[in-house]
Amino acid sequence: MPRYRLTLEYDGTAFHGYQAQGPGLPSVQEAVETAIFAFSGERIRLQAAGRTDTGVHATGQVVHADLEKDWPARTVLNALNAHLIEQAVSVLDAGIADGDWHARFSATERRYLYRILNRPAPPALDKGKVWHLRKPLDVEAMHAAAQDLVGHHDFTTFRDVQCQASSPVKTLDHAAVSRVGEEVHLTFAARSFLHRQVRSMAGTLAEVGAGRWTRHDVKAALDARDRTACGPVAPAHGLYLTGVGY
Amino acid sequence: MPRYRLTLEYDGTAFHGYQAQGPGLPSVQEAVETAIFAFSGERIRLQAAGRTDTGVHATGQVVHADLEKDWPARTVLNALNAHLIEQAVSVLDAGIADGDWHARFSATERRYLYRILNRPAPPALDKGKVWHLRKPLDVEAMHAAAQDLVGHHDFTTFRDVQCQASSPVKTLDHAAVSRVGEEVHLTFAARSFLHRQVRSMAGTLAEVGAGRWTRHDVKAALDARDRTACGPVAPAHGLYLTGVGY
Repeated sequence: MPRYRLTLEYDGTAFHGYQAQGPGLPSVQEAVETAIFAFSGERIRLQAAGRTDTGVHATGQVVHADLEKDWPARTVLNALNAHLIEQAVSVLDAGIADGDWHARFSATERRYLYRILNRPAPPALDKGKVWHLRKPLDVEAMHAAAQDLVGHHDFTTFRDVQCQASSPVKTLDHAAVSRVGEEVHLTFAARSFLHRQVRSMAGTLAEVGAGRWTRHDVKAALDARDRTACGPVAPAHGLYLTGVGY
Repeated sequence: MPRYRLTLEYDGTAFHGYQAQGPGLPSVQEAVETAIFAFSGERIRLQAAGRTDTGVHATGQVVHADLEKDWPARTVLNALNAHLIEQAVSVLDAGIADGDWHARFSATERRYLYRILNRPAPPALDKGKVWHLRKPLDVEAMHAAAQDLVGHHDFTTFRDVQCQASSPVKTLDHAAVSRVGEEVHLTFAARSFLHRQVRSMAGTLAEVGAGRWTRHDVKAALDARDRTACGPVAPAHGLYLTGVGY
């Protein structure tokens, strides 16, 4: 029974998040599981590196599926993409993994990108793909403030009240803010994140960019370990799961 | 009566082309004219640099509108964008032009980009925004063949049979093909183009990239001055009007 490792790209607009939610609520997981059934006749349960929320996109989600039959990885890639052609999800890569490799539990790094379109005009081509902030952001101030979030901290301030993680303590390995044309890109990497941690950090850093918060305010919010000290949570549609490290 | 010059971005997926088509057929022109009416109460007729086909996108379409009242350009920009918020069109820039300046007739250059997503997996995030070709394209061969199209030629081969231009002779000022990440980008510039000329050239150059045509075949097709000598016409959804020069 080979284990297939699949890398997925998806447009979160079309889905009620990654995880299967039941009838009438399309999810990425259900779309891919349905494509696997159409291709192989097997009803399997996917395991994913990260459970993205409604509206969140991915360019590098990683999942695994155990299939009965030993198909070439290339066949799985092409067959799944053929069955997914009407869906806003695509299999970028397929490979055969060891049986003890796990898409979720073997992951040592998750990487996220948060895209802000920073210009007066709203997005027409990237509607639902970027957060639109019309006033020019101070990118250097955002980057400096982001550095205070890097490291081993209690991230209670940046954690959704619904978060089910056993501990609010995480290590943020990387945070950077840069201007890319008309956009401001925030990138983050960690072994794992708390629920809505990236959007909470992105929304708070945008306050720094707008000049309403200082770097000191961000540090004080982190130190407060209090959800009510967080800035506004950035919307889901600017967020991308870009990759997973193993 | 000031003349406003507006630069537009739009997602062609949502429209039956730029030009107003009548009831039940949404167009970019109608969307912007409706927004102008909602803002100023004036029923005006927009003039545009280029009439893009159904499915064709723009990041730099230029239009003009003559309004009765002398609004600051910034007010026009923000008011139109507020009224266009539910539409897949956005005003990137607004300025006041001389009364003898004309969005269509004063234009001396139109610039187009054709985007090919060149990877095995179909697009999930850029569905409807790129042409997907899964086999690796020979970009250098495409670029070399494109150079034979540059210059003053009879472009009958690359002209739609419905084209209403009085002459098939045009001057192509620029053609280039390059790889940009997973995409292949074709860029073209000319004072003006024949109907479907860019898509006809892009589709023909893709045959070169796939190894089915040689550079010599493209030159022979141009010299034939025969529409039936053209390669396949590339689909509308990979094409972008990126800018207009004056």
